[in-house]
Formats: sequence, structure tokens, C-alpha cells
Amino acid sequence: MFDRKEKILIVGLGLIGGSYAQGFRRAGYYVGAVTRSQESIDYALENGLIDSGTNLPDREYISQFDLIVFSLYPKTLLSWIEENQAMIRSGALLTDVTGIKCSVVYEIQGMLRPDLEFIGAHPMAGREVYGVKNADADIFVGANYIVTPTLSNTPAAIEACSQVGRILGFGRIVKLSPEEHDEMIGFLSQLTHCIAIALMNSRETEHLAQYTGDSFRDLTRIARINDKMWSELFLMNKKALLKEMDLFIEQIKKIRDAVQADDLQLLQDMMRKSTERRICFDKK
Amino acid sequence: MFDRKEKILIVGLGLIGGSYAQGFRRAGYYVGAVTRSQESIDYALENGLIDSGTNLPDREYISQFDLIVFSLYPKTLLSWIEENQAMIRSGALLTDVTGIKCSVVYEIQGMLRPDLEFIGAHPMAGREVYGVKNADADIFVGANYIVTPTLSNTPAAIEACSQVGRILGFGRIVKLSPEEHDEMIGFLSQLTHCIAIALMNSRETEHLAQYTGDSFRDLTRIARINDKMWSELFLMNKKALLKEMDLFIEQIKKIRDAVQADDLQLLQDMMRKSTERRICFDKK
Repeated sequence: MFDRKEKILIVGLGLIGGSYAQGFRRAGYYVGAVTRSQESIDYALENGLIDSGTNLPDREYISQFDLIVFSLYPKTLLSWIEENQAMIRSGALLTDVTGIKCSVVYEIQGMLRPDLEFIGAHPMAGREVYGVKNADADIFVGANYIVTPTLSNTPAAIEACSQVGRILGFGRIVKLSPEEHDEMIGFLSQLTHCIAIALMNSRETEHLAQYTGDSFRDLTRIARINDKMWSELFLMNKKALLKEMDLFIEQIKKIRDAVQADDLQLLQDMMRKSTERRICFDKK
Repeated sequence: MFDRKEKILIVGLGLIGGSYAQGFRRAGYYVGAVTRSQESIDYALENGLIDSGTNLPDREYISQFDLIVFSLYPKTLLSWIEENQAMIRSGALLTDVTGIKCSVVYEIQGMLRPDLEFIGAHPMAGREVYGVKNADADIFVGANYIVTPTLSNTPAAIEACSQVGRILGFGRIVKLSPEEHDEMIGFLSQLTHCIAIALMNSRETEHLAQYTGDSFRDLTRIARINDKMWSELFLMNKKALLKEMDLFIEQIKKIRDAVQADDLQLLQDMMRKSTERRICFDKK
């Protein structure tokens, strides 16, 4: 558990890191930041997102914080902890916002100093724009916040991490194992991004834009993608993603072959199944 | 060209047929209807969508109409014209609302009496609900209306068919050949529906609904599908649809293999291409 006397450090001031900073600060916490770009720090200071910040982290600065939230690309996160964990105050709690969990959480827990604790979290919120200048704590309102504890996490850390979700105003706070999380995200998020990318790669499309209805637009909205971040996320969730992709490819080929074979019955069966399953995804 | 003295017949009073009826009637036209269900006729009469209607078409009724709009499933449309064209007044103009064109337009033009003219049209509007009780002429406002003339159409018929689109308030009226139309619809609409169906068929999903963000919801909205109608549309556009499905399957397998092979570079290249291509689909 932590209260307003505790200081929070955001490492990585992008869209999500900046939005976390804003949310914590609005809730009355002291918020510091470590990020590579001095421009981002200046912007965040001028706009009241943080109380202090540095792009040259040292022991004196880092060691004042009780909670550290990492909002970095997955590989950068792993190397940051490896290189800088010596500067962290004993007893501090570490958490993250990474969109995949197994290959981050177990890796960090395996190398972390025994007097520190890391617990994974995934705020399921975002926008198609990037950078601290687009930070907006309101994106968390009503969204899902997933805490992914492992056997090495303490009840106190699990509770503190859930508290982070409540402070930031998430709509629902859920616990999943890293494995359950990665399977869910492999299907609901990564596979759907792969589909949108494949669709936009499959032909020249510019002359078709004028005929587009909302269905195509909705389906490909996520084809605008941060290639550096998502390619890392895909590869770091390889096992789960490949499983979901193979299941999907099998089904799309089944439809293709049914069209080829004039198999009206199979097409209708698959359509009825998709209709029935889709119903439970309607917003309540 | 036709004016308000001419009478319009809607064959098939479903969502689209009923919405056409409402739109024409609001514009001051006399609107009749032929449809199988007496209940639909009663509803349309009570709610002012039509001036008259019958579920037992005879020569006396049919022959009073100058413009006939068919809003039927494709195969039903073909057999209706085959069986009933003898009852149509000489010189009448026939058009339709079918979502595929080659296998409907050429078939009808090939069997039609020489004193009648058929010109294909596709109103690119719809809802996820069905039946005349959901009819609503406002769904056409701002939507695309595609006229698909062939070499056997007269300039007068092309103009009259475009006029239908203007009367109903469509946002943009475009001419395409049946072939261009079917290729465009194979990619933008049919392939995307196949993808949504395949995705919902690829695994049990009920326990995942609670984690779903807007991306997945947007992508699968069209997985709720009228299986009888869409399976017919798929098979009647087989050649174009198979071509688009094969292009897509090739690309999704390319992504799958890149993930398997840790090919970060290829993944990023494909993401940048999809991002770049998607930009021209943003609403102006």
C-alpha cells in the first residue's frame, strides 16, 4: 500500500507515461520522471504533468522514489533495469505498462535485487498518436487495467499495484497470470493488428478509399501502427501469437475453400457461429 | 428521366426496400410494393411507407408501374424476373440494390424482354438489423450510390438511375462497370466480412469479451451477419472474392513466417506500408 507521502517515478515519458504522470499528479502525488529527451521533460514541467525530471538519472535522484512505473519499449525496459537497478531505494515497488507480460515479468523478476519487488501491469488504453504532448489521463477512464502477479509477488505489492489502477480511474481492475494475459492479448490485440496490416499490404488501395464504408475503416484503423514498438511486442509474444495466427489462418482458408467449392452450407454454418459468438461482445 | 407522375414499384420490402419506399414517398412519388409477407405490407401501409401493396402480384397491379426497384436476394431476383417479366409494362425501367453486380446484371440483361431495360445499382448503405420495421430512409444520407451501366444501357436509363440516387439523398453517385464494382466490393466488403467470420470462428471467445477494447469490437462488428444473404453474395462473386482472399492469405502468412523467423525488419516494413496506405482512408 502507498499513500500520498510516497513519491512516484515515471521512467519513459511518452503517451502512456505522460498520462500516468498527469493522473498521479491530479490525485495529489509527487511525480518525477526519467526520460531520454530533455524536450519531453521541459514540456511535462511546463504543463504540470510532473514535479521534477531528468534525462541523466543518478543515484541521488532515483533513490528518492518509492514507486517506479516503467513506460518503455520491452527491450529498453529490460536493459534499463539491468543497468540502473543499483540506484533504486531498497524496498521500492516497480511496475510497468508493457503490452506483453511473460517475457518481461519473469525476466525482470529473475534479475532483480532481492530487496526490490517488480509486479507487471497492463493498462489497456491507448491512442493512435504518440509522445508526451498527447498525454491525457482521461484515456484510462472506463478502460481495463490488468495486474499480472506471479508466485514471487507479495500480497502487499498486488494490492499496491491494483491501487495504481484505482488512482488512475480505470473502469475495471483484473488479475491474470502472465500466461493468461499473453494468450488473451495474442488473440484480441496482436492477431487483430496482424490482420489489419496484412489487409493493407494485400493490394494498392488508394483508388478504393472513396468507396469505403465504415466496416473497412473500422477494421483497418489499427493498421496505423508504431512499427518499432509493435514488432518488438510481436516477437516477445511469439509463442502465443503464432498459436492464434495459425488458428485464424486455418479458418480463413476454410472459408476460402468453401467459396471455391460452392459449399453454401459450410459458409452459413460459419456465419451463424460468428453471429452467435459476436453477440456477447456488444457493449452492455 | 422520370418525374413525379411516374409510379414506382418496390419488389421485396425488407430493410433496404422499405427505406427506398419511404425515401420515394417523402419525395412525393406514388409507391407500390410486392413482397411475400402480408404482415410487411400491412406494416408499410400503416406507417406510410407505401401507397399500395400486394403479396399476390398480377398483371393488372404490376403493369401500372414505370420504375421497378428489386430489393431481393440475388437468386430470388433472377427467378422473379424470369417468372414475372411478362406482367411488366412495356418501356418500364428496372433497377436493383444487389451487393454484387456481374452475375446479376448480365444474367438479367440477357433474359429480359427487348422492350424493357435493366440497369444495376448498389446503394452502399445498411444496418445490422433486418426487415421493413427497421426501414429508415436516413441511412442513405451521405452514403455512396453506385450505378453499374453496361454497353446495353441507354444514356436515359443511366441518367434515370442516377436520379434515383439523388432523390434518395445519397452523398455521392458514382458510375463503375459491373467488373470494377465486384472487384472493389470483393476487397472492401466481402473479404473484410470473411475475416471477421474467420476470427470469430477461430476460438471460443466468451471468456475474452470482458477484456475487449474498441479495436476488436470494431473489427468484428460485421461478424454478425445474415447468413442466407451473404453466402449467396459470396458465391455469386466467387472469382473476384477468391482473388482478394488469396492476396490477403499470402500477406497474413508472410507476417506469420516473419514472426516465426524473428524477422524484425520485414515486420517493420509491412507495418510502415500499412500505416502509410491507411492514411488515405481517414475521413476528410
